Amino acid sequence: MLGDFTYCNPTKLYFGKDALGGLNEELPKYGRNVLLVYGGGSVKKNGVYDKVREILKANGKRVFEDAGVMPNPTTEKLKEGVERARAAKADLILAVGGGSVCDYAKAVSVSVHCEEDPWEKYYIRFEEPSCEIVPVGCVLTMAGTGSEMNGGSVITNHAQKLKIGHVFGEEVFPKFSVLNPEFTFTVPRYQMISGIYDIMSHILEQYFSGTDDNTSDYIMEGMLRSFIHSADAAAENPLDYEARSNIMRTATWALNTFVAKGKTTDWEVHMLGQAVAAHTDATHGMTLAAVSLPYYRHILPYAPEKFKKYAVNVWNVNPAGKSDQEAAEEGLAAMENWMKKLGLVMRISELGATEEMIDGIVKSTLVMQGGYKVLTEDEIRAILKESL
Amino acid sequence: MLGDFTYCNPTKLYFGKDALGGLNEELPKYGRNVLLVYGGGSVKKNGVYDKVREILKANGKRVFEDAGVMPNPTTEKLKEGVERARAAKADLILAVGGGSVCDYAKAVSVSVHCEEDPWEKYYIRFEEPSCEIVPVGCVLTMAGTGSEMNGGSVITNHAQKLKIGHVFGEEVFPKFSVLNPEFTFTVPRYQMISGIYDIMSHILEQYFSGTDDNTSDYIMEGMLRSFIHSADAAAENPLDYEARSNIMRTATWALNTFVAKGKTTDWEVHMLGQAVAAHTDATHGMTLAAVSLPYYRHILPYAPEKFKKYAVNVWNVNPAGKSDQEAAEEGLAAMENWMKKLGLVMRISELGATEEMIDGIVKSTLVMQGGYKVLTEDEIRAILKESL
Repeated sequence: MLGDFTYCNPTKLYFGKDALGGLNEELPKYGRNVLLVYGGGSVKKNGVYDKVREILKANGKRVFEDAGVMPNPTTEKLKEGVERARAAKADLILAVGGGSVCDYAKAVSVSVHCEEDPWEKYYIRFEEPSCEIVPVGCVLTMAGTGSEMNGGSVITNHAQKLKIGHVFGEEVFPKFSVLNPEFTFTVPRYQMISGIYDIMSHILEQYFSGTDDNTSDYIMEGMLRSFIHSADAAAENPLDYEARSNIMRTATWALNTFVAKGKTTDWEVHMLGQAVAAHTDATHGMTLAAVSLPYYRHILPYAPEKFKKYAVNVWNVNPAGKSDQEAAEEGLAAMENWMKKLGLVMRISELGATEEMIDGIVKSTLVMQGGYKVLTEDEIRAILKESL
Repeated sequence: MLGDFTYCNPTKLYFGKDALGGLNEELPKYGRNVLLVYGGGSVKKNGVYDKVREILKANGKRVFEDAGVMPNPTTEKLKEGVERARAAKADLILAVGGGSVCDYAKAVSVSVHCEEDPWEKYYIRFEEPSCEIVPVGCVLTMAGTGSEMNGGSVITNHAQKLKIGHVFGEEVFPKFSVLNPEFTFTVPRYQMISGIYDIMSHILEQYFSGTDDNTSDYIMEGMLRSFIHSADAAAENPLDYEARSNIMRTATWALNTFVAKGKTTDWEVHMLGQAVAAHTDATHGMTLAAVSLPYYRHILPYAPEKFKKYAVNVWNVNPAGKSDQEAAEEGLAAMENWMKKLGLVMRISELGATEEMIDGIVKSTLVMQGGYKVLTEDEIRAILKESL
């Protein structure tokens, strides 16, 4: 039965080829000091950085920089960002980059005016912000995490070998996000494919949970069909604007809380993938790809009807004369073929994980309660070994 | 190609069996004077009115009433509502009822502080509000129009035989909406079925437009499959909470601007249906049902591929060995069977329209530009005659 929920998503999206012009509508709403946050410099190579600086200047902003946000933003970097934001007396944090940069910007935004250690407060004790929050805006250059329209913020603590996400409430959502599919044209192929699987996994991890008849599941089936089609088109031609548009748009809506409302969700694949990343620093989407099929094949017997539905409605499996289990397995086989053809990493050993690391990765894996099977430590170990 | 767009929907939804409790979170945000707007008294019979009054009292509000909003709210009633809101010095307009009541509340909200004639300003000249807007909240008791999470507001002018909708911007969207599927249990069957087709038509009129590969179309196919399934379940058992939940939720998301973003839309069925209603005062959803198939069969030859997609992905038509046209027609035949089984009105003559009225209805029908065929006056006449 559809559960009770509240829904509010106040983020304003500017989407399309001229989306950057939205900054001219948004910037006047905030004070003069802008902390410009970005990553390793790809935004300088593709020209987005220069365009953003120009618009900031035209709007009379005083710009402070915080560069070098890594793919898995660390507690050390977060500390640095908080210091920079404080020194700048930032009125707005403008994230220019992919999901990591947006995640990081949100982590800084709730920590600038907070005296406590943000890692302890938000990522260990999962407390809510009790201080002033600096508004965040995003200029997205990679489709994937959905961070541009939600409260998610994942931070990695290398000392503790933990990569943990806090899902903040709507007061931490970006106030606005600029989504120009053309900005994703220059994302290297490995990152693009990785982002594609991250998005796919976001949908699947919300889909594979619950036994009720829920509109969300039908909507996700539609999203998945569109997404698989567009992913193939983008892999064929990365400059296919229509395909990149559909991918970018689906990424945002897959994780802006919409499809999760009224239903349970799982997220165990993310827990497994994040644990792998904490030990290998591997690219997020690839860690998810490498653990997904061993996980899904492990939980399939606990929900064969749902996996059959997936096979039939997403992968066009003809169920005639097949048991639920058989149809379901055929769906996962179709998914496996698609993943391999797309060039996804199918084994965590290819990401640097070794047999010796398994015990550590098991320890780093959080166990979620919303999936079709709540995993034991032995099951986690078995899935990870299967993924090696 | 996915077009440029901006998206922002700030309405907060409280959904589920305990949704009315959301009023306790929302009411303190507004001043003391509340204009309570409702329709013909069904909210008194089903107890929702008493519950709302109780919560208003507990929150220390001074309540002013504006009852008797009709299914097609008129310019005369709008004038009365504006006077009542002015006399009450309303800080909040709380609409308790179906889409008509929400539509009407929005019309009042943009007219209270406006000196001009609202019909002329908003419904003839389609101007935007240039005055203070009184905030609106909704307690929904019927699923259908989506008015609870958008800026739409349809008003009827009997003297001019016109029923026209203005789609206001996000500043006119309800600040919050309370959606309890149980509140729709007592909607009479005729109204429930009518609402179901209104929702169906909202999705179809956005779906049947454009030739690009657009994620929205795939999402709408998913919504439609879920919706048809839930509509059948609700027709079978109106107290099926899961089905009524899915219907209520789909109604909201079908018309809260989400699926329309990045694509063209049509709305000619609504133009035809509203013209019929202006001459007969018939129930909204039934006017749409009665003109839909003649319209879709008329435009099918201009987009056989899209109608085939609809037949295959929504109605499970097997396209093997069939031309696009044949598969498409089979889809519309399946839809026709479903409509008849549901008990929808299939002819405008059953709604009071006569041969003699046709010329007048043709004159009242606005011609939209986004469909697969922009209709001529002769085509409108032919479709209406076919619908008789």
